[in-house]
Amino acid sequence: MARVAVDVVLKAEILDPQGQAILGALARLGISGVSDVRQGKHFQLEVDGSVDDEQLAKIADTLLANPVIEDFTIRR
Amino acid sequence: MARVAVDVVLKAEILDPQGQAILGALARLGISGVSDVRQGKHFQLEVDGSVDDEQLAKIADTLLANPVIEDFTIRR
Repeated sequence: MARVAVDVVLKAEILDPQGQAILGALARLGISGVSDVRQGKHFQLEVDGSVDDEQLAKIADTLLANPVIEDFTIRR
Repeated sequence: MARVAVDVVLKAEILDPQGQAILGALARLGISGVSDVRQGKHFQLEVDGSVDDEQLAKIADTLLANPVIEDFTIRR
């Protein structure tokens, strides 16, 4: 068994109001030094040895991300 | 400017119905080899040199995660 992480983020050209809300909150709290925030999804999968990178990409592309507006990265 | 990633996941003892729904969908799609799925949040922050690890932990603890039910990890 291995743990695989999949991070799903909105494509750069898609507006991210959640991230902008966090950026606004940081400013109101007086925290400086953060110029941009993007929010996405994070998945942790427990997989066995039969699941290869191609299979993981298929899972991410069909179930975890919406490829029209989101990109994903897989970390083993 | 540096990009920092913050991953927020539900604590292990908290039920994760979203992850369970994905696990069920995998089974229905005939994809085997995945024994558990947990869903969390992923944040990408653009920070400048003035933001140290302590500041990042404060941001994650107060704005990005709910420390009662969630854990976070920071990756620079």
